[in-house]
Amino acid sequence: MLLDGKKLRDELLLKYKEKIIDNNFKIKLAIIEVGENDASKIYINNKVKCCMNVGIDAKVYHLDENILESDLINLINELNEDETITGIILQSPIPKHLDFDKCSSLIKQNKDVDGFTKENVYNLYLNRKNILPCTVKGIIKLLEHYNIQIEGANIVIVGRGNIVGKPLALALENRNATVTLCHSKTKNLEKITKNADILVAAVGKANMITKDMVKAGAVLVDVGVSKIDGKIIGDIDKKAYEAASYFTPNPGGVGPMTVAMIIDNLIEMKEGEK
Amino acid sequence: MLLDGKKLRDELLLKYKEKIIDNNFKIKLAIIEVGENDASKIYINNKVKCCMNVGIDAKVYHLDENILESDLINLINELNEDETITGIILQSPIPKHLDFDKCSSLIKQNKDVDGFTKENVYNLYLNRKNILPCTVKGIIKLLEHYNIQIEGANIVIVGRGNIVGKPLALALENRNATVTLCHSKTKNLEKITKNADILVAAVGKANMITKDMVKAGAVLVDVGVSKIDGKIIGDIDKKAYEAASYFTPNPGGVGPMTVAMIIDNLIEMKEGEK
Repeated sequence: MLLDGKKLRDELLLKYKEKIIDNNFKIKLAIIEVGENDASKIYINNKVKCCMNVGIDAKVYHLDENILESDLINLINELNEDETITGIILQSPIPKHLDFDKCSSLIKQNKDVDGFTKENVYNLYLNRKNILPCTVKGIIKLLEHYNIQIEGANIVIVGRGNIVGKPLALALENRNATVTLCHSKTKNLEKITKNADILVAAVGKANMITKDMVKAGAVLVDVGVSKIDGKIIGDIDKKAYEAASYFTPNPGGVGPMTVAMIIDNLIEMKEGEK
Repeated sequence: MLLDGKKLRDELLLKYKEKIIDNNFKIKLAIIEVGENDASKIYINNKVKCCMNVGIDAKVYHLDENILESDLINLINELNEDETITGIILQSPIPKHLDFDKCSSLIKQNKDVDGFTKENVYNLYLNRKNILPCTVKGIIKLLEHYNIQIEGANIVIVGRGNIVGKPLALALENRNATVTLCHSKTKNLEKITKNADILVAAVGKANMITKDMVKAGAVLVDVGVSKIDGKIIGDIDKKAYEAASYFTPNPGGVGPMTVAMIIDNLIEMKEGEK
């Protein structure tokens, strides 16, 4: 059965829109873009459009690619202090002479829409109230929407990146799943994935998860994005869907949820202000 | 075969002592004790003795159990600023009217002997240079000493506490192990532990890991401590040793290593000052 991220996103965005109107929320998102990057432009456009759709004011702060780090820091500090700004995103990547981790870590914890700051990671680690990274939150909402039980499930995550794999492992452990985190040095990967009740692939290697690596009835979540001949290909071979009880299409599964969770986080942050 | 933590500790302490003399290191450890706790007194005594043995000056700052949080914070700040102090330990537990996580997080990252501050956890998470929590470091040193390969190993950790389970999972992932973190909500625990090349038990439930839960030839690391009739009993039933290639005795395995790693961390911090 399809885990339809597109459909759920559309439903959620309608709900968010109503909620924002009903509560008369004034929410403003600041997106910082440094330099020129075609992929970033597409992502930023998507975020801005999505915000507009639900009645959130999104402003892009575009900085020259040769900017000094101190200028970027000054802008972040200004936005931190600006009470009209609900949340801040520093769009990655930024030019190499700027330290992304350092700069993004300066975003105030309660304005950290992406959930990547030190404070939020620490709270996630300690299972305290935190802002979840959008992709992580999107996956969890999608599973919950389809009543797929996380507690007690054996969940195998392939890929240990800082954006998905690592924070997802912590977030699922906090929800009482038993998590195995796999990566390029994992031996006998197919033996491990075959034990998964829920298998999440977040590597970016086209079709690396094949049908023989999947337990019958498993739930498959595909976060991987590879581009082959201009087409988006996920980490999970489509033939593997045959073995699954549920699966996310890719595209159309986790991706749409990620953008919706920016809105979800912004509303959560607005409600936290009260 | 025995993973002899006591023997390795003694060897390491001799090495540390030489190193401190050879480099003429002036190392000073501040241990903060709040209130009266019999178990804490024993732990603190062990730490002080161990420091004395290698030529480290350890001073215990004893505070009354009714102290204000602001007084504790003031002491931590003073010790942070004191250039003669190499490292600081806030001995847990502290009285309930004081917030342990908040106060211990105020210890400067480069004086954080226990490796529990926000900064150190964040660095561990990102696989950057960090101070490893002593038990975690002790387990890794013990495995390395006996040439047990961590990279690529399937490691199952039972117990997801903040002192051992969680940071150990991150540290072993950073060393390219494939880690599964189990806990009280894990289903079919025996099926998971049976796949472990290295099985770490850190729950504190006497003899919970039995021989039938262990793969033949596995490495067993027992961190659990339960007291039954005044005797220390580990999490791993001694009969399980028969199935193992290597095992830590308990007591005499991980425990002695933990104290030695306080010294290891202090030397690392002293060297980092240069």
